[in-house]
Amino acid sequence: MGRVTERRRVIRIRDGAVSTRPDTLVAEEPLEIRLNGKPLAITMRTPGDDFALAAGFLVSEGVLGRADELANIVYCAGATPGGGSNTYNVVDVSLAPGVPVPDITLERNVYTTSSCGLCGKASLDAVRTTARWPLADDLEDAGGSAVRIEPETLAVLPDRLRAAQRVFDRTGGLHAAALFTPDGELLDLREDVGRHNAVDKLVGRALQQGLLPLSGTVLMVSGRASFELAQKAVMAGIPVLAAVSAPSSLAVDLAAETGLTLVGFLRGTSMNVYAGEQRLALRTAVGGA
Amino acid sequence: MGRVTERRRVIRIRDGAVSTRPDTLVAEEPLEIRLNGKPLAITMRTPGDDFALAAGFLVSEGVLGRADELANIVYCAGATPGGGSNTYNVVDVSLAPGVPVPDITLERNVYTTSSCGLCGKASLDAVRTTARWPLADDLEDAGGSAVRIEPETLAVLPDRLRAAQRVFDRTGGLHAAALFTPDGELLDLREDVGRHNAVDKLVGRALQQGLLPLSGTVLMVSGRASFELAQKAVMAGIPVLAAVSAPSSLAVDLAAETGLTLVGFLRGTSMNVYAGEQRLALRTAVGGA
Repeated sequence: MGRVTERRRVIRIRDGAVSTRPDTLVAEEPLEIRLNGKPLAITMRTPGDDFALAAGFLVSEGVLGRADELANIVYCAGATPGGGSNTYNVVDVSLAPGVPVPDITLERNVYTTSSCGLCGKASLDAVRTTARWPLADDLEDAGGSAVRIEPETLAVLPDRLRAAQRVFDRTGGLHAAALFTPDGELLDLREDVGRHNAVDKLVGRALQQGLLPLSGTVLMVSGRASFELAQKAVMAGIPVLAAVSAPSSLAVDLAAETGLTLVGFLRGTSMNVYAGEQRLALRTAVGGA
Repeated sequence: MGRVTERRRVIRIRDGAVSTRPDTLVAEEPLEIRLNGKPLAITMRTPGDDFALAAGFLVSEGVLGRADELANIVYCAGATPGGGSNTYNVVDVSLAPGVPVPDITLERNVYTTSSCGLCGKASLDAVRTTARWPLADDLEDAGGSAVRIEPETLAVLPDRLRAAQRVFDRTGGLHAAALFTPDGELLDLREDVGRHNAVDKLVGRALQQGLLPLSGTVLMVSGRASFELAQKAVMAGIPVLAAVSAPSSLAVDLAAETGLTLVGFLRGTSMNVYAGEQRLALRTAVGGA
């Protein structure tokens, strides 16, 4: 396979010391599952075991229950927008003759993700065309309107987020998303069982208060930085996304393409910067391997 | 509000000592988001800030960008299958005149969740009707075919799961799902950036190998036990679901209704049992507050 993980350049900050090195990220790419040739679902997944993923998804949906109900699973070639090359991101499941095909309509259980088109490239394109507020603008305005944030300020955000999380302490089961000023002042915090919902709640509040785009703010999330969360930051005009845990490969790609500053593994005084390091006030010159 | 958390009875096991007490769980319920009266998306969320959630979701989708583009958001009454009572689980967003309504079709970015109908009740009903292998059967067969598992065996599963996770060690970014025998023997393990995908891969492999239903097995997941994961266990005929972190309220409700044994906060020799405790070999009589 080789696609389960991907290598990216990362800037490591450890107690103020800055170095650059390659880092291994978990790969995240969309998979479109088709049933008898018709699009059924898109999920953001780590490539590998794709046929098992499609089969298991159909078990959960109540479509499959025995191996002999499954006729065939294949990758679809030429599934990219321009036709042609096989991205291995579309699988088609054929049911055995006589197995009922579920009636999947928009009125039944569908969930629209904000995260994908047919493949990573297509979805990145889609984000670029729909984002109203290009994030990279402030980066080009040398020394002007660009957000500048001190690593020391980022380092205190996880504790501030945790302190403001009320429901988590009682249940241990909630994701949090918080909006901070570049000086580390907490502007708002929302919690939800779904991390994407926590960000949507934060952004929706800001919209209702007439605060979009959220330029000059930092979005801090309690878990990992998936593509979906990076995309939500971009769409809301938030220039800096900081996460307690790991980013995915596609989140890093999106950040690099849109000018989003992406910080991961923010723990104590250490953090990794995956994109948009221009917004960080780094005292030491970036060097290293 | 009062719905951000919910109280449930839980059996606590701490170093072999068993007690019963009320526990606070994070609430999880489906929210259907409608746009100008038409169903657009369903998400599993923690109730609260629902209008902000809907608005923020539409910012991420590129539909909304300014407060004045949003005309109104309301809860839909009579949205339960039988009509009548308002579940506060359906919101309708009206756009201001002139704001383009996106063309949402099945061919564009839709993701079918296995997790919900219009409300928690409806989705629980749907699971009961589609599950091919009723889990509760072995519970009624007193002392016969029922899976019996020792808490001491459960206690070693997190370490065994972690030891078998290869990609996590390199990236820190993957969820894992593993299948064990009641004696704690590892049968299979799958990793993915999405926890539901990890379970689908595990179940899909089992289907392909003719192993469904997975009766007599234990599913261990590296994170929290959401409704979606509990549902996937039920659909695959897995009688025991153990999670390192917290379950949601809806996962506990589903487990209780279907006869799934649900264990959460499985850490060291301590764990919480939320449903189906008959499958656990508890040495001490269940007592306590």
